[in-house]
Amino acid sequence: MTMDLNDIGARAKEASYVLAQAGTTLKNRALQTMYEAFCKNSGKIAAANAQDILAAKGNGMSDAMIDRLTFDVRRVEKTANAILDIIALPDPVGRVTGGSTHPNGMSIEKVTAPLGVIGVIFESRPNVTIDAAALCLKAGNAVILRGGSEAIQSNVAIVQVMRGALEQAGLPADCIQLVEDTTRESALQMMRLNQYIDVLIPRGGAGLIRSVTENASVPVIETGTGNCHIYVDENADIAMAADIVCNAKLSRPSVCNAAESLVVHERVARWALPIIAERLRAGHVEIVGDQAACAILKDIAPATEEDWGKEYLDYKISVKVVKNIDEAIRHINHYSSHHSEAIITENYDSAEKFLAQIDSAAVYVNASTRFTDGGEFGFGAEIGISTQKLHARGPVGLPELVTQKYLIRGKGQIRT
Amino acid sequence: MTMDLNDIGARAKEASYVLAQAGTTLKNRALQTMYEAFCKNSGKIAAANAQDILAAKGNGMSDAMIDRLTFDVRRVEKTANAILDIIALPDPVGRVTGGSTHPNGMSIEKVTAPLGVIGVIFESRPNVTIDAAALCLKAGNAVILRGGSEAIQSNVAIVQVMRGALEQAGLPADCIQLVEDTTRESALQMMRLNQYIDVLIPRGGAGLIRSVTENASVPVIETGTGNCHIYVDENADIAMAADIVCNAKLSRPSVCNAAESLVVHERVARWALPIIAERLRAGHVEIVGDQAACAILKDIAPATEEDWGKEYLDYKISVKVVKNIDEAIRHINHYSSHHSEAIITENYDSAEKFLAQIDSAAVYVNASTRFTDGGEFGFGAEIGISTQKLHARGPVGLPELVTQKYLIRGKGQIRT
Repeated sequence: MTMDLNDIGARAKEASYVLAQAGTTLKNRALQTMYEAFCKNSGKIAAANAQDILAAKGNGMSDAMIDRLTFDVRRVEKTANAILDIIALPDPVGRVTGGSTHPNGMSIEKVTAPLGVIGVIFESRPNVTIDAAALCLKAGNAVILRGGSEAIQSNVAIVQVMRGALEQAGLPADCIQLVEDTTRESALQMMRLNQYIDVLIPRGGAGLIRSVTENASVPVIETGTGNCHIYVDENADIAMAADIVCNAKLSRPSVCNAAESLVVHERVARWALPIIAERLRAGHVEIVGDQAACAILKDIAPATEEDWGKEYLDYKISVKVVKNIDEAIRHINHYSSHHSEAIITENYDSAEKFLAQIDSAAVYVNASTRFTDGGEFGFGAEIGISTQKLHARGPVGLPELVTQKYLIRGKGQIRT
Repeated sequence: MTMDLNDIGARAKEASYVLAQAGTTLKNRALQTMYEAFCKNSGKIAAANAQDILAAKGNGMSDAMIDRLTFDVRRVEKTANAILDIIALPDPVGRVTGGSTHPNGMSIEKVTAPLGVIGVIFESRPNVTIDAAALCLKAGNAVILRGGSEAIQSNVAIVQVMRGALEQAGLPADCIQLVEDTTRESALQMMRLNQYIDVLIPRGGAGLIRSVTENASVPVIETGTGNCHIYVDENADIAMAADIVCNAKLSRPSVCNAAESLVVHERVARWALPIIAERLRAGHVEIVGDQAACAILKDIAPATEEDWGKEYLDYKISVKVVKNIDEAIRHINHYSSHHSEAIITENYDSAEKFLAQIDSAAVYVNASTRFTDGGEFGFGAEIGISTQKLHARGPVGLPELVTQKYLIRGKGQIRT
């Protein structure tokens, strides 16, 4: 069954008004029902996923991508467990966050309220379908999910299970809907569905994010592009620098908080770079660098202008040698995607300067950029890492999935 | 001197990095210098404004619009006084708003930081030029101002005074820049200047706001369209209802928090409508209504579908009769611009239901929608009223002109 996006939008808006009035108990009951339904139907979902994988292999999809797409019984159950964590988190709706009494006696109260309808456009990983829907539900928002064509069978099966659980718990099934039309046109139409969608959250690669920011008229929470830098200062502990660079580059190169560029102070470059490079090469990392880096490391290729702005998401890193911390900060602020950056230094002034002047969501001193994550920051769950400055910056958790409204109680006050 | 928008953007970004590091004392000194410069140069600014008015009269501008454009010595001084209020407000930058210690010992601190570069696109009122620049400056943001062609001489004179004051105080003049090219092309280019502009704030009529949300790829804070409703419940105090409707419609019809539509419960419509209509007609308000309203008021014209969604900003109001509060809420949520709505009722359940279910920035019980205003809400100053749900909703004051960042201090932590 396919449906026009306007119908989907209208149904989502209608459902969102019902969901906005649901209390925490009812929302948690729906999540609990959903968890149990996933445990019971994990085999069915895995079977649907197997069809997607078969088709993907037929289309020559790479092993790495097949791995991202795979949603076997074990992964279904692991993702379902995350729903239990979301049940345990505090309800972000209805918190009184401010207020005052007007001199004329009116009470002005500021409270958190659901955003309404959230659109999520994402790529192949089927666990996102469950994570995103569960987080939106807990925050009182209806969600319209549009995944990629590779995962369509998996997503249909997952959403069917979730809609059944909603109805069983006494909430409208239309709180969670899937756009089954996976053409580019449906994504573009969704980006301009201002009448029904309050906020759009894209989750995926740089291409998807760019397409959404370019084309959306619906307000967007931009997520996930991470061209992260590590700057090794002249007063760095080089062994620590090597550990952190290797952790940030090698522990999971395909994620947004992985390091993509190494910036080194010229006073330590000559002895620090060979040490760090040896460790990176042992991890099969390709290195490109500027002229000074090439002179020190000799057997590396020169970095192009494009390299400095590139999120490789792969076993590759660029290296830039700078005269001082000011040049490092300028370089990073210019080329970074404003996600996460780190300085390695033993100097107090350098540390504080870097923290103050780097214009990114997360700025580290002597720690790996890999920590930028909702779980690591203690938020329990996240729907993405925001690299924009409005509304949410850094990991986007439940507290960011709401808006606020002002409630004013008077007894006939007029403005004179 | 005209400049390419890319140049303006690059200069603003550069200046924003300097301004972001300025402390409260320096920013307040610049604002104080600005205030004094306006007092000294009020005659010069009024003279520039007189040129704009001469040209506007030549172009046949209406008296109401001429009044909005007028910036005589008295108005310059009044606007300059608002700068003193902004000096007195707390600095929104550098507040620690959260944080924790990671189990591995890293400290994670969440602090407020300037947005960076704010673009403001606005229409004829020259006081906006000063208000917007002063608020952005206090919040540590560079600003790119693009006013309308009608006010170009006034804006050039105003910005010259402000840039002089910045330099005198020791801050880069490029913290405040004016786009002197007032063509539609410059506005469109500004809306897509993602490389340099962090946030765009349009201030003006529905046409401008629509153009910005349709065309901008830069994140937008949507402001100011107010199709505000007043719902008179079956248990309303009708005298209070008449007072509030008249205040909301008549005290200043051209502003966004003025009432545009009256919704009345059918059980009170027959005697409440004539009473309210008589007061509105005494104030020269044109009334249009649905079939039931026409049957009661007889000499009014029928409302069209377009009327329900219309922000008249004029001496005109639409009237809708509903069966019950649920129909009122559905009607309002469907047609409203989600700015401000009010219920007039003596019934507790109706009041709380309306507060909970109306999806607008400000929801009132027994008070006029005209109170939705930064000053009235106790924020001291505002750059507009946001009708969107991301980042800021309702009056946008200094606290909304910042973002946040995470500062993480470690001693070699890596993610395992």
